[in-house]
Amino acid sequence: MKYAIIGTGAIGGFYGAQLANAGEEVHFLLNSDYAIVKEEGLHVISEVYSDIHLEKLNAYQHAIDMPACDVILVCLKTTSNASLLPSLVQPLLHSGSVIILIQNGLGVEADVAAMFPGVGVAGATALVSVYKVGPGQMHHLDYGDIEIGNYNVQDTTIIDKVVAAFDNTGLISRKAEDLNTLRWKKLVWNITFNGMCVVLNTTANKLLADRATYNLSKEIMHEVILGANACGAALPESMVYDMLQFTIAMRPYAPSMKLDYDAKRPMELKYIYENPVAMAKAAGYYMSKVDMLLQQLLFLGKY
Amino acid sequence: MKYAIIGTGAIGGFYGAQLANAGEEVHFLLNSDYAIVKEEGLHVISEVYSDIHLEKLNAYQHAIDMPACDVILVCLKTTSNASLLPSLVQPLLHSGSVIILIQNGLGVEADVAAMFPGVGVAGATALVSVYKVGPGQMHHLDYGDIEIGNYNVQDTTIIDKVVAAFDNTGLISRKAEDLNTLRWKKLVWNITFNGMCVVLNTTANKLLADRATYNLSKEIMHEVILGANACGAALPESMVYDMLQFTIAMRPYAPSMKLDYDAKRPMELKYIYENPVAMAKAAGYYMSKVDMLLQQLLFLGKY
Repeated sequence: MKYAIIGTGAIGGFYGAQLANAGEEVHFLLNSDYAIVKEEGLHVISEVYSDIHLEKLNAYQHAIDMPACDVILVCLKTTSNASLLPSLVQPLLHSGSVIILIQNGLGVEADVAAMFPGVGVAGATALVSVYKVGPGQMHHLDYGDIEIGNYNVQDTTIIDKVVAAFDNTGLISRKAEDLNTLRWKKLVWNITFNGMCVVLNTTANKLLADRATYNLSKEIMHEVILGANACGAALPESMVYDMLQFTIAMRPYAPSMKLDYDAKRPMELKYIYENPVAMAKAAGYYMSKVDMLLQQLLFLGKY
Repeated sequence: MKYAIIGTGAIGGFYGAQLANAGEEVHFLLNSDYAIVKEEGLHVISEVYSDIHLEKLNAYQHAIDMPACDVILVCLKTTSNASLLPSLVQPLLHSGSVIILIQNGLGVEADVAAMFPGVGVAGATALVSVYKVGPGQMHHLDYGDIEIGNYNVQDTTIIDKVVAAFDNTGLISRKAEDLNTLRWKKLVWNITFNGMCVVLNTTANKLLADRATYNLSKEIMHEVILGANACGAALPESMVYDMLQFTIAMRPYAPSMKLDYDAKRPMELKYIYENPVAMAKAAGYYMSKVDMLLQQLLFLGKY
C-alpha cells in the first residue's frame, strides 16, 4: 500500500511519520517546508510516545512528481480544499485509490467527492494535541487516536487495512460505524471550544475554570448534541460530561482555530459552524448559541 | 424645588447642568473631581445644543454637607448602589423627598426602595451620548431625551414637576406610563450593544456594518422583546427596526459598558443582564443568546 500525505503540517506530519516509522510506504507532499525537510528529515518529539526521527523520507514539492497512491490522506485545513485539492490530488489517483480526509467538520466529504467523481472518499477524525514548531518539527503533547468513517468507498476492505496500519503504529485506531455520527461527535468539542477560545481570547482550561463559561460550554455542547440528534446522529446527552472531564484533564492546548485566528489565517467556519447550523436547522433544530458563536466568529474573521 | 445630583459624572453633570442652567436649584455631589469643579465650574460642550458653562455651582464633597432635597437624582453606576447609596442619600431625605434613578437596567428601583423604606422611588432612562472628558468637563455628542417612570411614589405630582423642569430645559422629557415597559425598552438597546461591543471589542456602528453581527444584533433584540413581552412589557416587534435605524444614524459612540471594561471597572451586569435573564426565565421565556452574552461578559469581567 502506498500512502500519500497531502499537507505535511502538524496532523499530516504526525500521522505520516507514525505510518512511515512502522514501515509503511509514505509519500509526503510539502510546500514551503520542502527544502528543509528534504535536507533535515521529519521529527516528532512526543511527550507521551517514543520520538520519531525520519532522516530520509519520500518528500515532494509538487504532486505531479509523486507516484499514484492507494490511500491519499488529506491533512490540509478545509479552508484550502476548494482551491488546492483538484490539482494536488488528481495526479495521485489510480482506479483503486481512496481519499481519506483527516479534517474537521460536517459536509466536507460530500464536497470532495463532488470534485473527484468515481473516487471513493472517507473521513477521519484525529483526537490529537500536536503542534508544528518548525519545518518538519512536530511537538506532540497528547493523544493520537484516529477514527475513520466511510463516505462512498465501494470496497471498504481498504479502510480496514488503513485502520490496521494505524493500529500497528501503536495509536488507537477504529473504523466508525457511521461517518455522520463520527463527525458530529468531534463537533461537540470543536464547536464549543474552538469558537469560544477565539471570541474570549483564552484556552479551554480557563473556560472550564470559570463558572459562567463552564456553564456556557455545557449549554453549547448540549445544543450540538440536540443538533446531532436532529440530523440522525445518536449521541447521548452523557457525552457532555465525558467531554468536560476529558478537557479538564488534557494538557493546556490552543485549539487550531485559535492559532489560525491569532495568525490571521482564515478560520474553518464553513465545515465546523456553517454546515452544522444549517443542517440542524434544516432537520428542525436551531442551535441558537452555536449560531451566535458563528456570527461572532464571522465578525472577528474580517481581519 | 431642590434637586440633588448624586454622582456628577457624564450623566449627572449633563442633566444637572441643564436644570441649573434653566434656573433650578441644583446641589451637586462630587467625589474626586470636587476641588477642580468647585474652582473651575461645570462645562457641557455640546455638538447639538448650546454649550453650558456653570461658573458657580452648589458643589459638595460630602452628602452630610448638603441640604435636604425634594428630588434626589441618582446618577451613579448601578455597581455602586449597594455600597454607596445608603450613606449618600440618607442625609438628603425629608418627608416628601423622592429618589429618581437615572440608571440602566431592571430591578434597580426595587433594590433602592428596600434601602429607604417609606421613601418614594422612580426610575428614569436617559437617551443621551455624553462623555466626561475631564473633571467637570462633559462632551455632549447627541440626544438628551429623558423619560421617568414611577415605582412607588405616592404623590406623583412631583414626578410631573420634574418632567416639566426637564422639558423647560429644552430636552425632550416624558413621564412613562409604565416603568417596567420603560426599563425593557431601553434594555433592547443596552443588552444588545453594550455586551456585543465588549465581547467583540468594537462599536455599535461596526457591528451593524457587518452582515453577520447585523443579523445577530437583530436576533438579540428580538429575544429581548420576547423577554419583555413575557414580563408584561408590550414592546412591539417593529422596535427592532426603529432601533437599528437609530443606531446606524447615531454618531459613533462607545457604550458605557465598553468604557467600563476598557478601564477595568466593574460592568453593570446585574441589572442589565442578570436580572432581565432571570426575570424573563421566571416568566417562561429563556433569552438564550442574551444569557450567552452574559456568560461571556462574566468571564471577561474577571480582569
